[in-house]
This record gives sequence, structure tokens and C-alpha cells, in this order.
Amino acid sequence: MGIKNVVVAGGGVLGSQIAFQSAYKGCNVKVWLRSEGSIGRAKPKFERLKGIYLNTLEAMKTNPAAYCRGLAPQGATPEELDALKAQVERAFDGLVLTTSYDEAAADADLVIECIAEDPQEKVAFYTELAKHLPEHTIVITNSSTMLPSAFAKYTGRPDKYLALHFANEIWRNNTAEIMGHPGAEGVPATDPAAYDAVVAFAEQIGMIPLKLRKEQPGYILNSMLVPFLSAAEALLANEVADVETIDKTWQLATGAPLGPFRILDIVGLTTAYNIGRLDPRAADPTTVQGKVAAMLKRYIDEGKTGINAGEGFYKY
Amino acid sequence: MGIKNVVVAGGGVLGSQIAFQSAYKGCNVKVWLRSEGSIGRAKPKFERLKGIYLNTLEAMKTNPAAYCRGLAPQGATPEELDALKAQVERAFDGLVLTTSYDEAAADADLVIECIAEDPQEKVAFYTELAKHLPEHTIVITNSSTMLPSAFAKYTGRPDKYLALHFANEIWRNNTAEIMGHPGAEGVPATDPAAYDAVVAFAEQIGMIPLKLRKEQPGYILNSMLVPFLSAAEALLANEVADVETIDKTWQLATGAPLGPFRILDIVGLTTAYNIGRLDPRAADPTTVQGKVAAMLKRYIDEGKTGINAGEGFYKY
Repeated sequence: MGIKNVVVAGGGVLGSQIAFQSAYKGCNVKVWLRSEGSIGRAKPKFERLKGIYLNTLEAMKTNPAAYCRGLAPQGATPEELDALKAQVERAFDGLVLTTSYDEAAADADLVIECIAEDPQEKVAFYTELAKHLPEHTIVITNSSTMLPSAFAKYTGRPDKYLALHFANEIWRNNTAEIMGHPGAEGVPATDPAAYDAVVAFAEQIGMIPLKLRKEQPGYILNSMLVPFLSAAEALLANEVADVETIDKTWQLATGAPLGPFRILDIVGLTTAYNIGRLDPRAADPTTVQGKVAAMLKRYIDEGKTGINAGEGFYKY
Repeated sequence: MGIKNVVVAGGGVLGSQIAFQSAYKGCNVKVWLRSEGSIGRAKPKFERLKGIYLNTLEAMKTNPAAYCRGLAPQGATPEELDALKAQVERAFDGLVLTTSYDEAAADADLVIECIAEDPQEKVAFYTELAKHLPEHTIVITNSSTMLPSAFAKYTGRPDKYLALHFANEIWRNNTAEIMGHPGAEGVPATDPAAYDAVVAFAEQIGMIPLKLRKEQPGYILNSMLVPFLSAAEALLANEVADVETIDKTWQLATGAPLGPFRILDIVGLTTAYNIGRLDPRAADPTTVQGKVAAMLKRYIDEGKTGINAGEGFYKY
């Protein structure tokens, strides 16, 4: 059948991107928001995305470095890129923003939950949503830090519930990790048919699907990235070497374009700090984890939270 | 003053490369070997290195992809490359292989210990060497797994003893991690003058020095690489995703040319297995570490030890 009518719940950084990309790729997209205030805050995000998409497609006509995998096949002609720019305009004009569960849910094939990473808020949202959804609707979460098994039973359709985890700037970083849940007593596991439908949806909106066969905290990427970045942070907090030396070592040895501290500046030091504090040892200043937390806090207190702030481990 | 007379102790994979590279860059190099048998085994390694250096320099005339950072500055002319080929011949012809401590040590400015990763053998070597060395000689270890503080007191010159850790294929992967030891009761720490002399030596033989300010097991690179690769191994052993998906996730998200399983194939699965077994939890088959060890052992038992065997996680 294919997924046509998409609801994105939440208008934050990722929610707005997922909604815009889905609309750009031809879905009918409604964005469900909690309040009129949320609608007011979401609108400029869509304006900004429209500008980014239009500018990028224009730049792709002449500059190979501007190419974004999520926007067009490689080697698109200027005429094709112009047609895609018209698609951006249509996507923007077609977006429906609503605070009504009924309006959002009525004909939804897919709901993508992108609300705050707060379990209580998510439970309340799923519980209410379930009252309004048609039976066939698939529900997915974009949560980075929580597992779908924590919420499956509140969705009214645990077998049609799973996770689809996007990266920031999805038009460029077009990966999507797909993860079901194993079910529990009285809660059926994710149905392979729903899983496959979400894989197909990810491809339909220009993502590269990355399939997980089991539920895994941190999915695939963060399961590797977090210990790697933590190891680099520990080297620095222990004063084994400086930022530049650690990055250079990694780049020279592995050929990677970025060392761990460049990656941390992109991820944001606040996110790294919050992840680090999940480890109870971070509360003890004599442990490596405690030294790392204290070091990150010093940077954050000085406003050096990463590339978006103009400075993190490096200046931009 | 600069280091002119270099002794490399040990003719294994790294020992032979370090000796050849040092000679290529103009040092007088003696290779100390334990026995006539070791000399017989080392000779073909130097023949092979001579061939690699000559072929690479020739290829660098026409093929930019053949460029090796340790061999020449970027953009060397064909004439300059021919001059370097003559240097390869001189390096090869000038190598002295000996089993005599006296012959090796008499005028040594620097001894590079590259013998087996066995603490007893290293202690015996350092103890005997100390009897033959001039006072000014600096001694360094290339050990990957042991710390200089474990051996400083046996060298007769703890303040002139430190670690210089090379990567395999040093003419291409020309990084050298430099690490002193902190000293102990009655054992002075590495003297900054000796540290700086080794930094200068590393540059002199075409390496990029990577400076550690503290002693650190695993140096900089392996301190990050081991937890990163272990995390990838755990995802596979736990059947979260397959080799290709895990590698693709890392490459797409970080822009790295190789995913963890490609890197593991280069490192070698036997090395990964031996590192993993250092963790006592690897003995328990119900732990993640135990599952990883069992998985690696299955590959190794099938002869799939990595790229050098033609097959590891991938076929070559």
C-alpha cells in the first residue's frame, strides 16, 4: 500500500525536519503540536528549512560539495533540481499544523512521535492518541534515549509500534535506524509487516534504512559513538594528551575526516555531559567519569557548548 | 646533537620496519638479534621492505594514490624520487645485523627495543644491554601492551628511557606515539630532554610525533580504538545487526572510510581476541565479553583471521 498520510507529533529540531522531509518526498503531512504557542514556535523552523532546501538544491547545480543525499539522486540536472525546488514550495504550502488529535489522527497511515524525551509526557501522548487513531495506523518513535518496549503497551497497537531514529539534518545525514520491540506478557512484539512498512517508508522519504534485529539502547550508532567519545574525553580529562593531538591521532590512524573532539563539538557538549551523567560514577569527582563530567561542565559554564555556540573544544 | 647511530633490537614485523625506515632516513642502523637463526629470519624481511620501498617510490612518480607520507614530501619530482630509490639501496646495504651486545651498543645514540611482548624477556634484555651501553644512549620501547614504568629500573638509565610506539607499515602509517614514565621510589622519571630528543628523532625518520603527557596503557590510539571496536563486536555478538549494517552506520554517520569490522580485519581477529581476553569477564560465556570472545574464536578457528588471511568479517 505505501504510506501516504503522515502525522509528526512535535515541532522540535528533529520533528520539524522529519515533517518537512516527508512532505518534500510527497507525503501529506500534519504536524500535531501541544498548543497554539507550539505552533507559533514551529512555524519559523519550517520557514528556515524551506530556505535551506531551496538554497541547497540551487547550490547543487554548480557545487558538487553541496550535494545532500536526502534531497536528490546524484547527478541530477539543473532542470530536475528546479522541479525539486517546486516540490519544496509545495511541501511547505501543504503542511498542516494542528493541536487537534482528531484532525491529526483521522486518516493517519503513520504517526511519528518526536515529543520531549520525558517518559510521562510520552505515556500521556500515546494514551490519548490511541483513542483517536484508525486501526491500521503504524506508530513510531524517534526517541534517542528510550526504548519502544517502554511505551508499546500505551499505544493501543503494540504490534504496529517501533522506533525509527533519525540523525540531525536529515536531508544531508539521511540515515534511519529501525528497531522493533520484543513484546512482553500480554504485549505482542512488533509485527514484521509493520517493521517492513517502516523500512519502505524510510526509503520513500530518501533515508538509508539501517535495520536492527533486536532492541538495543543507543541503537547502532550511539552504541559505538558513546564509548568512543567517552574514551577520548577520558584521555583529555586525565591530561594524557591535548585536544589537537587526540584528534590528529584518530584521523591519521583511521583516515577519518573528524577526530572525536570535532565530533563532540557537532554533537554538543551539553548532550555529551547529559549522557555522561547517566553513569552514577560521574557523581564522584575522583573517578574518570567524574573528571570528564567536571571538565565538560567547565566548558559549558564558559558557554563553549560546541559548534552551534561558535566555540567548544575548537573555535569556529 | 641529533641521533645518528641507532640500534634496533628485534627483527620482527615492526623491528624490521623501524630499522629499515631509520636507515632510509640516513641513520647508521645496527639490528641486534638473539641468534644466528634470528638473523636468518630477519634477512628476507629486509629484502621484502627494500622491494616495497623501491616499488612505492617508483609508483609515486605516476600514481597519486601510491603516495606514502613516510617516504617523501608530497609533490616530489621523478628525479627526487630516483634519488630516494638510491637511498633505499644504500639503506639496505648499510644495515648491520649482529648478535653481539658489544658491537651493537658500543656507539649507540639510541636503542629501540622491539623484542617479544614478554616481560621476562624484556627484563633480561634491558639488564644485559645496560652493561654495554655508553652513558649518553637513550633507550626506547615500541611495546604496545606494556608500560615503560614496568622496565625503567632495569635499563640503567631510567631518565633516558621512554616509549615510542609505531603503527604497522610505518612508511605509510607514519605516526609515532611518544610516552615517558613518571618514575618511582629511587627511579627518576623520563627526562624532558630525552623525551624531546625522541620527538626530534621521530621527525627525523619521517614520523608524525604524537605526544603523550602521561603514561597511559594503550597510548592514545588504542585507548579509543579498543572500546570502539569492542562496542561493534558486542553489537554483532548480541545479534543486534549484521557486519555490513554496523559498518555502514558508522561510515554514513561519521564520514569514516572504514567501519569497525573493516578495521578489525586489518588489525587481525587474533589480536582482537587476545585483547578481549584480557578482560576476566570474557571467560564467562553468558557475558557480552564472553559472547564476543566465542564469536571471534569461531572466526579464528575457521581461519578467518582478517585481511592477511584473505578472509575475516569480509572476503578479500
